[in-house]
Amino acid sequence: MARKFVSEAVISRLFIYLRELSELTKVNINTISSAELGERANLNDALVRKDLGYFGQFGVSGSGYNTRELRRALEKILGKDKIWNVAVAGCGHLGMALLAYPGFKEHGLKLVAAFDSDPEKIGKRIEGISVRPIGQMSKIIAGKDVSIGIVAVPQKAAQDVAVKLVESGIKCILNFAPVSLDVPDDVKVKDVDLSRELETLSYFLANPR
Amino acid sequence: MARKFVSEAVISRLFIYLRELSELTKVNINTISSAELGERANLNDALVRKDLGYFGQFGVSGSGYNTRELRRALEKILGKDKIWNVAVAGCGHLGMALLAYPGFKEHGLKLVAAFDSDPEKIGKRIEGISVRPIGQMSKIIAGKDVSIGIVAVPQKAAQDVAVKLVESGIKCILNFAPVSLDVPDDVKVKDVDLSRELETLSYFLANPR
Repeated sequence: MARKFVSEAVISRLFIYLRELSELTKVNINTISSAELGERANLNDALVRKDLGYFGQFGVSGSGYNTRELRRALEKILGKDKIWNVAVAGCGHLGMALLAYPGFKEHGLKLVAAFDSDPEKIGKRIEGISVRPIGQMSKIIAGKDVSIGIVAVPQKAAQDVAVKLVESGIKCILNFAPVSLDVPDDVKVKDVDLSRELETLSYFLANPR
Repeated sequence: MARKFVSEAVISRLFIYLRELSELTKVNINTISSAELGERANLNDALVRKDLGYFGQFGVSGSGYNTRELRRALEKILGKDKIWNVAVAGCGHLGMALLAYPGFKEHGLKLVAAFDSDPEKIGKRIEGISVRPIGQMSKIIAGKDVSIGIVAVPQKAAQDVAVKLVESGIKCILNFAPVSLDVPDDVKVKDVDLSRELETLSYFLANPR
């Protein structure tokens, strides 16, 4: 099926539906209506139906969705039926925090390579992975079927590292450096600015309830 | 003025407008229309006017917004005209990465206290701050006018730490632990799940352009 353009907001909601469906199948609930699924997700039922409608016809009118079928369909749509190999560039505190993050494995992500430019870090083992020089990235990544590259280097090194990830064949980059990366059109970059998460908090401080 | 309920999406966009206005005032552009501001922010002009309309009457019909006035107004609305003191609970890699994050200072946030339960970390200095025992949190925070608490401890310790932050008078928590914190209604919690940021990437891998 030719995929329509789907926004990140829709995709984020599909993950919410998937989490709810996983809970439901665990407790052997076999069907759910869009209204019930929406209620669990704090979203209205029309939005649930619209979001799922981008990807096909799932429910049966009047009897709702089969929870197992919908879960499997969403897993496939969202790429959650596979393990994706991840490489981290930058093994400072941020890189180390990411490597140790328990959620990685739960989300089907497997760390297979870690890179740093600091000679003192090269050769160290982190979460079972040996840190390698950034200069060897292409060679090392080539043999490992890496799908996602994480940029966890300081701002001034980020663009160079992104170029190396792209040269290594990576099509998906998660960028923690507070800088806009210049990459080819077929490479997806997701920026995460940790300080922006804090930023909205100042509004709530300035406007207490 | 009594504040209407304003969603986080609106607040996020106000920060975008503020960044654009800061750029404009830096290069001495004194007025801008909602259409031009929208174009810079990749948003339509009706949305710009609606977002700003929650907070008052800013532009003059036909001549647009005074960039300096609107910048100052947004800074005040968003709490960016002040410095907010921040305490970090948990000085593992994640806490350390946050402490070293350059964006903090830029966003008007000042780290004033850091806590950990590991005796080996107590007394160490991180970014000029001495790490103190979590048990002394209330006493230490009491003298420092701390507005934001960051939970950067492992999942199993997160709720206990949140309780201690609340007992210390903190009304705003940024939570990096993958767990839902139980806090009183007057405490604002913002959850940041780093693995969720990665999650949406698997969709793009499964559905390449």
